[in-house]
Amino acid sequence: MSLHPTGSRDTLVPFAAGSPPSSFPDCRPAHVTAERGECWFSLPLRHGGTRAVRISYESQGPQNAPCVLVLGGISAHRHLASSRRYPEAGWWPGQVGIGKSLDPRRLRLLGIDWLGADGQIDAPLDTADQADAIACVLDALGIRRLRALIGASYGALVGLQFAARHGERLRHLLAISGAHRPHPFSSAWRSVQRAIVRLATNGEDRRNAVAVARQLAVLSYRSPEEFAARFDAPATRNGDRFEVAAESYLRHQGDRFSAAFSATAFERLSESIDLHHVDPGSIRVPTTVVGVHEDRLVPLDDLRQLAASLAGPGRLVSLHSLYGHDAFLKEDDAIAGVITWVLAEGETEVAA
Amino acid sequence: MSLHPTGSRDTLVPFAAGSPPSSFPDCRPAHVTAERGECWFSLPLRHGGTRAVRISYESQGPQNAPCVLVLGGISAHRHLASSRRYPEAGWWPGQVGIGKSLDPRRLRLLGIDWLGADGQIDAPLDTADQADAIACVLDALGIRRLRALIGASYGALVGLQFAARHGERLRHLLAISGAHRPHPFSSAWRSVQRAIVRLATNGEDRRNAVAVARQLAVLSYRSPEEFAARFDAPATRNGDRFEVAAESYLRHQGDRFSAAFSATAFERLSESIDLHHVDPGSIRVPTTVVGVHEDRLVPLDDLRQLAASLAGPGRLVSLHSLYGHDAFLKEDDAIAGVITWVLAEGETEVAA
Repeated sequence: MSLHPTGSRDTLVPFAAGSPPSSFPDCRPAHVTAERGECWFSLPLRHGGTRAVRISYESQGPQNAPCVLVLGGISAHRHLASSRRYPEAGWWPGQVGIGKSLDPRRLRLLGIDWLGADGQIDAPLDTADQADAIACVLDALGIRRLRALIGASYGALVGLQFAARHGERLRHLLAISGAHRPHPFSSAWRSVQRAIVRLATNGEDRRNAVAVARQLAVLSYRSPEEFAARFDAPATRNGDRFEVAAESYLRHQGDRFSAAFSATAFERLSESIDLHHVDPGSIRVPTTVVGVHEDRLVPLDDLRQLAASLAGPGRLVSLHSLYGHDAFLKEDDAIAGVITWVLAEGETEVAA
Repeated sequence: MSLHPTGSRDTLVPFAAGSPPSSFPDCRPAHVTAERGECWFSLPLRHGGTRAVRISYESQGPQNAPCVLVLGGISAHRHLASSRRYPEAGWWPGQVGIGKSLDPRRLRLLGIDWLGADGQIDAPLDTADQADAIACVLDALGIRRLRALIGASYGALVGLQFAARHGERLRHLLAISGAHRPHPFSSAWRSVQRAIVRLATNGEDRRNAVAVARQLAVLSYRSPEEFAARFDAPATRNGDRFEVAAESYLRHQGDRFSAAFSATAFERLSESIDLHHVDPGSIRVPTTVVGVHEDRLVPLDDLRQLAASLAGPGRLVSLHSLYGHDAFLKEDDAIAGVITWVLAEGETEVAA
């Protein structure tokens, strides 16, 4: 693939020494950079021909620090956590920030917007396309090799593809709640989500349909145990019908998602999960797989099979969580423990 | 409630002695009746005021035999199984028929169409309304007391309500895969199904939406293990998108359902599951509860709690089935065993 980086590099934004914001748990003076940009390049899509595509990125931390690429679910994006320069909330505040497991004082933390998240590609996407696009971004940014790729949910799928296709550019893969293939039952759930979106034809209807599809997605991310604890209340009357206890929560989740995500972006990213397939035997990069017993979308058995079939060093860490597939967004301490463990291994080698 | 039976009783349809159809496993000459009719009566709905309602019924077997009321899921109806008079396939051919666990030579087997299944009631329905409607039907048919009520899925919910509200008219309740209350996570699933239907406004769109909602319902009835065994194949291209392996199966299920079920009927019966609540302490009728370990819609723990809280004699039978909530439609031998066991108890008392 040919590479045409057009991203504008932003300058360093150091904290004034001795006057860090009081909310920072660690008060050593720190130089934290934050930069955003975008890369345009030509990418041969597996199922959609060669296209000019754009990937937007954000980076926090010193440019010469070891780089960790951090990838989340399909609704995640380049903005991992707030910084002085970009103070809005990010999608992984539990892990990314000063004093957290992914500390921008010591690491360069890179996030991207998914290929297709802007709704500009209405063709089948594949997780391999995402992995190849990331390789282009790394080229554009002059990053030869990642200290680690930490991917959760969709990010784990893309991480596995990256490890299989561009393993020489990666020292360690941490794949959380994502397997080498979609489970057939989970694919069926997603196919219904896409069928919901296809019910609608015009713009406003499509937005409403995406919201309802997201409600179903949210159910696949969570566990009955959590809902039993949170929503154990009788249905309440609303006009000529009744609403169940979880209904306003689900509606809120769906509406928030559909305000940010187009129908095309949703359909194509959802579809790409069902096109995902990686042969674990093609992954030689040291890999830590994290699975959650209560995850109904990515059964732990599939992650056991993945970890056991890796060509390189592999291990499986399993957690219990009421939050099922969404544990990576909720179980901050457990996830931080795994991240810290992964990054500490061979630290001397990195520093050398 | 006042009662206005208008159903026309059909006459007996005896088989010619000595010439039973060759497919019957038991060749003793048998007199099997089959009759259909409908009852109109005035029914005070819990949430919808007093209305003139209609219940259609079908009965197989001698009118003077012990009567067993047989109730299935929301898509079930009065036609349990084919008979000489009504030869089309019924919804429970695995259990109902000559030589089967529910044998119309020895029992009068009664089935009904659910209140609201005709789409004529666009108001909140409750399983208590269904139970009261059944009491009216029994009055109309001159049936003082049921030998048993065998209810599966929605039929189990209605059976529990009937046992709580009209216990004196029932000797034994067999409740398969239905609990005293909906699980909050299952209610959330159903709320999304109803949200899908509400996306559509006009007739054809509503039919399509019901079909997609049914696809989601089917997923809640089945298990990941079954799908892993049946649909473990890559997605295939269909025009500009890919379809997962289960997609045509789900579409078929949805389309078949939406051809027979109106949006209003679906919404109101689905909603009635979420309004369902029975205090197990109000059930004094001997009750056998059947649960399936793999049922994701009605967790076995809820059935354990139900069985343990009954005011009368109660017991729990648990099965393993790849078919989850739909086990009652698939595990013919295991279900037949439980039915036979329940009906054999106190047989002499019944015969006396």
